Amino acid sequence: MNNLEFKSNKLYILDQTLLPNEEKWVQIKSKEDAYYAIKSLMVRGAPAIGIFAGYAMALFSDNNDIYALKEYLDSSRPTAVNLSWATSRILKAYENGKSLVDEAIAIHNEDIEMCRRISEYGLSLLNDGDGILTHCNAGELATSKYGTGLGPLILGKEQGYNFKVFTDETRPLLQGARLTSYELERAGIDVTLICDNMASLVMKEGKINAVLVGCDRVAANGDTANKIGTSGVAILAKHYGIPFYVLGPYSTVDFNCKTGDEIEIELRDEDEIKEKYFSSPTALKKTKCYNPSFDVTDHSLITAIITDKGIARAPYDKSLKELLG
Amino acid sequence: MNNLEFKSNKLYILDQTLLPNEEKWVQIKSKEDAYYAIKSLMVRGAPAIGIFAGYAMALFSDNNDIYALKEYLDSSRPTAVNLSWATSRILKAYENGKSLVDEAIAIHNEDIEMCRRISEYGLSLLNDGDGILTHCNAGELATSKYGTGLGPLILGKEQGYNFKVFTDETRPLLQGARLTSYELERAGIDVTLICDNMASLVMKEGKINAVLVGCDRVAANGDTANKIGTSGVAILAKHYGIPFYVLGPYSTVDFNCKTGDEIEIELRDEDEIKEKYFSSPTALKKTKCYNPSFDVTDHSLITAIITDKGIARAPYDKSLKELLG
Repeated sequence: MNNLEFKSNKLYILDQTLLPNEEKWVQIKSKEDAYYAIKSLMVRGAPAIGIFAGYAMALFSDNNDIYALKEYLDSSRPTAVNLSWATSRILKAYENGKSLVDEAIAIHNEDIEMCRRISEYGLSLLNDGDGILTHCNAGELATSKYGTGLGPLILGKEQGYNFKVFTDETRPLLQGARLTSYELERAGIDVTLICDNMASLVMKEGKINAVLVGCDRVAANGDTANKIGTSGVAILAKHYGIPFYVLGPYSTVDFNCKTGDEIEIELRDEDEIKEKYFSSPTALKKTKCYNPSFDVTDHSLITAIITDKGIARAPYDKSLKELLG
Repeated sequence: MNNLEFKSNKLYILDQTLLPNEEKWVQIKSKEDAYYAIKSLMVRGAPAIGIFAGYAMALFSDNNDIYALKEYLDSSRPTAVNLSWATSRILKAYENGKSLVDEAIAIHNEDIEMCRRISEYGLSLLNDGDGILTHCNAGELATSKYGTGLGPLILGKEQGYNFKVFTDETRPLLQGARLTSYELERAGIDVTLICDNMASLVMKEGKINAVLVGCDRVAANGDTANKIGTSGVAILAKHYGIPFYVLGPYSTVDFNCKTGDEIEIELRDEDEIKEKYFSSPTALKKTKCYNPSFDVTDHSLITAIITDKGIARAPYDKSLKELLG
């Protein structure tokens, strides 16, 4: 029981908007409940949204036109590719006369299997007792189990490894504080929260043996888009001679994207920097903010890219293709 | 009128605890007012505290035993070296039968002169239109005028330069957001607030021509202690080939301290990371935080150290001594 439970044909989710201060499980009883859960970020993370939408399609198609239901759920978060991918799979199962619940469970199990593979490959690069730095959140809450960036830590804990993990709080949305530190605590892992600007010092003090991060998009040459700040952590790791590992599903590699220069950086609202989460504004109303939500880490800064199909190392334009074969 | 005004034998200060949301000037009418203003951080920054204490000694010694007054004011913030240095100077003037107010004004004017020199040396390294990154706050609010790290920007503005400044918000205490962005806005300078972890991206995008920071202590070999995160910014600047300048009074160089390894890093409370400033805690109560308030930037990462006695460049063990002669 991680972020979602499907039991006796009932669907429950952990409301992630209340974390870490409250752990509240909510039953999803209607298509309207499901729509709201996605839209309001009660469930978040590309794989987790796909899994949730699969179950919602299977559960609520009895009393609804399934085509209209798919369109309705897809509209809850239009940019989430995994959402429409999962609802399409359920629709296809319907058209082929298969069990929709079985298909939803299959989507769920495939994600667990994928996360387990990434976690095993990642764990093969770590040693018991290692100090690990991570940035943002790529853990169980965003997926089915284990996670991607955090997967080796959670799988490792199951297998008796003891890591000492430092997590950047990850401004402005604080995913490292709110989600990563919460889920590592829950897994019984030794975790210490730091501000993003403390990463250099903890590395210099010899507290870090490896950096693990997730990824949003990997270009054919290995350039990697991930949460804002990731490229800075990679530069620090290189400076201090610490391995920097990117972890994610092989499907994250976009061979149509030649280099990171082609990846557009999303700019978000100013109030995320100076208002959201704070009890009073941290700067004047007229003060401009620049709020890019991602950056691109150059492939030359990445020690290895760890996928469910194996581990790629430089030169990535070759090694990433070879994993497919 | 910056952070303090002495006029018709009356002392006023800008209450810095209310910035940036409220600009409130407060008259200091008694030794108790003065004590509270220092203790509660209404006045902050080593030079500013010294200047303020000088005026307070001069004003309130008429109705008080001046030796007891010095001891009382010194106890308001025992670790502030500049505080007891300034009260000692006023005491010495008293013992020599000189005007205490004149001595307080002299302390004030000497600080303006020192800041102006640092600012002029710093400005000589910049070009009109430059993009500048700064971290934490080393500006007018912490000194008499211009500031140290921000001095070249404020002096430059007076002289018609147009800089495009990016300021790190500087977690956990947000001095970059609360103070630096406020005082650059006040000076009419183009300023953009970013989160600390965005520095790598703005450098990569070509928005930064130079980094300016203050300093808390400089070792004989040029290693520099400053606000947490400074060393990370220096590593990024080196990676992207951007000059990294440290600015401060020559008195900040501690020739008894051979290298940065001898500088002890102050650790502060966990609640500064996960509670202070936030409307609700960002992590679980049991989650550990590591909260070092300074880090040491290796001299090899510093392009130049700019003091009121001139500009030092590598090798610093030689150049810093030469400035004295």
